[in-house]
Amino acid sequence: MTWRHALVIDPVAENDPRVHFGSTFTPIDPAAPALSVGELSTQRGDGIFESIGVVDGHPQEVAAHLDRLAHSAVLCDLPVPHLEQWRQAVASAAAEAPAGESVMKLILSRGVEHGPAPTAWITLAEAPDFSVPRTRGIRIVTLDRGFDSEAPARAPWLLLGAKTLSYAVNMAAIREARRRGADDAVFVSSDGYLLEGPTSSLILRIDGRFLTPAPGAGILHGTTQMSLFEELARQGHATAYETLPVDALGQADAAWLVSSVRLAAPVTSIDGAPLAVDTDLTAAMNAYLLSPRD
Amino acid sequence: MTWRHALVIDPVAENDPRVHFGSTFTPIDPAAPALSVGELSTQRGDGIFESIGVVDGHPQEVAAHLDRLAHSAVLCDLPVPHLEQWRQAVASAAAEAPAGESVMKLILSRGVEHGPAPTAWITLAEAPDFSVPRTRGIRIVTLDRGFDSEAPARAPWLLLGAKTLSYAVNMAAIREARRRGADDAVFVSSDGYLLEGPTSSLILRIDGRFLTPAPGAGILHGTTQMSLFEELARQGHATAYETLPVDALGQADAAWLVSSVRLAAPVTSIDGAPLAVDTDLTAAMNAYLLSPRD
Repeated sequence: MTWRHALVIDPVAENDPRVHFGSTFTPIDPAAPALSVGELSTQRGDGIFESIGVVDGHPQEVAAHLDRLAHSAVLCDLPVPHLEQWRQAVASAAAEAPAGESVMKLILSRGVEHGPAPTAWITLAEAPDFSVPRTRGIRIVTLDRGFDSEAPARAPWLLLGAKTLSYAVNMAAIREARRRGADDAVFVSSDGYLLEGPTSSLILRIDGRFLTPAPGAGILHGTTQMSLFEELARQGHATAYETLPVDALGQADAAWLVSSVRLAAPVTSIDGAPLAVDTDLTAAMNAYLLSPRD
Repeated sequence: MTWRHALVIDPVAENDPRVHFGSTFTPIDPAAPALSVGELSTQRGDGIFESIGVVDGHPQEVAAHLDRLAHSAVLCDLPVPHLEQWRQAVASAAAEAPAGESVMKLILSRGVEHGPAPTAWITLAEAPDFSVPRTRGIRIVTLDRGFDSEAPARAPWLLLGAKTLSYAVNMAAIREARRRGADDAVFVSSDGYLLEGPTSSLILRIDGRFLTPAPGAGILHGTTQMSLFEELARQGHATAYETLPVDALGQADAAWLVSSVRLAAPVTSIDGAPLAVDTDLTAAMNAYLLSPRD
């Protein structure tokens, strides 16, 4: 992975006139030290992020990602991001992207400990080559997320549904999946409902309908899943958000984990039980996801 | 808070001869940028930490903190820290501490994304003035942690019991406590057992015995609580680790949240119900905790 570009954003308040002059972010050397050891993002994982796929210089679904960034900010009591400022910064970073696929990360940290304000930055890097998982697929295992499905509504301080920088558990779940001989995981609530992957959304096809676990049970509203559902609906397919018990996995004749950069990865086995891959449909999904989307 | 000192550690493997020359860490300017935007500590909260109290230049309970750092590393699949290297770095940082109280943070990150090795550093800063919470006490509220008490054993990938950098929920719990007019929180499992504070351990006095929730239910083994229990036992008091239902709070005639830097903060109310403070005992606890301890 080659770092291509980075810029530091000076988060502004609503109506800050500097935004009109595009002077609220500064390119930096992505390989040079840029962050203080006092950063609460490092000390506490205290901040929020988004990962945006960039294809041939086009950042995908920017509005949906910025909406979710703003939603995460509210859940985390962070100052609401100035969306026009972030749009400008995303466009500036995307202009540095080479042909092919890149990954852009947007980070809004609570800032330096005891400091006056949040810190924010964007990085752009070459995307890994995901052609193998997109075509040959991935083996997944189900992992208990520990929470019951009512915890998010009962305990908003658990920040379920916010895309925070505190992703140590998500990373540990992927390591556990690999220990079990799989490639990725799907979280299940302690009361037996399907949630999401550690860094992706789950889509099942059951009786010709495309289903994903309903947001609100503490899962992120997936930007790639939303975009793909719109496209599937345009093609005449039925799509739905449902509360899905773990048994629904056994009823699916196809399944995918979808995310902004790896895109649609077809599932080839769940906890060791094989699942067929719909090769043509998966290829069509990824062709759509690689086309410019807004 | 004034930053006093920082140093970057080059984590070494067992038997690295450089450790004998003390040449595996480097002082840096704590105010200058030091970390890459590719740091997984910032992007994913992916790493572990310890906070050590330093009193008049003496770092407290270093061995217990380093043991816990090593324990967290195992839970998080990080390379086991070289304890002699860390001991040297802690001593080097402590030598820069002024008179009075400081806080030393030890951070071991998984490193820069796609990088070859973990990154590690230590910061030293002036401690906040905690004389008011130590003497006048703190109001606490109970908050649901979302997990049942069997989740830690069932799902080790939840990293319960590891002191990870993914502390966004802990920080959100303290903000929720303040919204409720309190100073701090105590987490309760979804099945009704007392756990710990977001950054502290809970000690209750019931019928003359000092009790703390048993580690293993997904809580950290508190270094300050352990040290204080040793001292209480030396003074002839009974101490015990117990599985404590939330109702135990109503049976306590005194309670404390204890941690490495704020030390013993007596609880003056729980969810609005007042609790008496044992002023003399609390003063004795804090006098002990401020004395040099190893």
